[in-house]
Amino acid sequence: MDREIKFRIATEQDLERIVEMLADDALGSKRERYEQPLPNCYIKAFHAISSDPNNELVVACCENEIIGVQQITFTPYLTHQGGWRATIEGVRTSSSERGRGIGTELIRWAINRAKERGCHLVQLTTDKKRKDALRFYERLGFKATHEGLKMKL
Amino acid sequence: MDREIKFRIATEQDLERIVEMLADDALGSKRERYEQPLPNCYIKAFHAISSDPNNELVVACCENEIIGVQQITFTPYLTHQGGWRATIEGVRTSSSERGRGIGTELIRWAINRAKERGCHLVQLTTDKKRKDALRFYERLGFKATHEGLKMKL
Repeated sequence: MDREIKFRIATEQDLERIVEMLADDALGSKRERYEQPLPNCYIKAFHAISSDPNNELVVACCENEIIGVQQITFTPYLTHQGGWRATIEGVRTSSSERGRGIGTELIRWAINRAKERGCHLVQLTTDKKRKDALRFYERLGFKATHEGLKMKL
Repeated sequence: MDREIKFRIATEQDLERIVEMLADDALGSKRERYEQPLPNCYIKAFHAISSDPNNELVVACCENEIIGVQQITFTPYLTHQGGWRATIEGVRTSSSERGRGIGTELIRWAINRAKERGCHLVQLTTDKKRKDALRFYERLGFKATHEGLKMKL
């Protein structure tokens, strides 16, 4: 790509565009509420994320337009001799940009950020219904060594 | 069980016993260092966990003896309308107690704690090599809907 993609921490002004991307997704369209004004639940969650030094909401921008988003959580554990892990969640790219490598750029950015933060492992879970996503992550070097178990409360 | 099991947040005095349990495990024995004095990496990680309001290291005790441990991480996300999730990691029980239901008690405690904290989801990943663990979590109501992908850095 000869376009310049910039990555930065999201601000509250980006939130409407981010929620628009989260809702513009096969699974997200059923569970998100992209409305104007933006439902307060998103604003509250944004502040919880932004005020936590172990969470980073990152946007990918091209010519000042947001074309991708992801959240990275850094967690200290006792296991693996007290190793920190980075967990990637909520990776979405603008539907007009799909297939243009933005997802790859996002994940590479997250991997580098995890190294900067001293993590020994980067992890994520992907819904078994998202067949393309699994192949995408495996191509990037992730190994599907674990089962990802969820329980709704 | 007619024994009384108590759950509480771990203190630094519990750390040696916790690391002993983490090392007394098929996978843990290859990657942990249960030595006296305890390697500093564990003490540093313990302080990082304890000082983070979104991480709880929990021990299960019976007659003042620690027989189980787990870490619960609470994470705010934008997805699912700004929903919080609880992630369970590092679940271990004393080898002398295995098969006596301590694991079930630990996970039930974590589920209740996740509800108290307002989470909409409890999640965990389990190594595909741990066949018994998958069945154990499925019996408790978890669904293996996701692939758990990891990348060592």
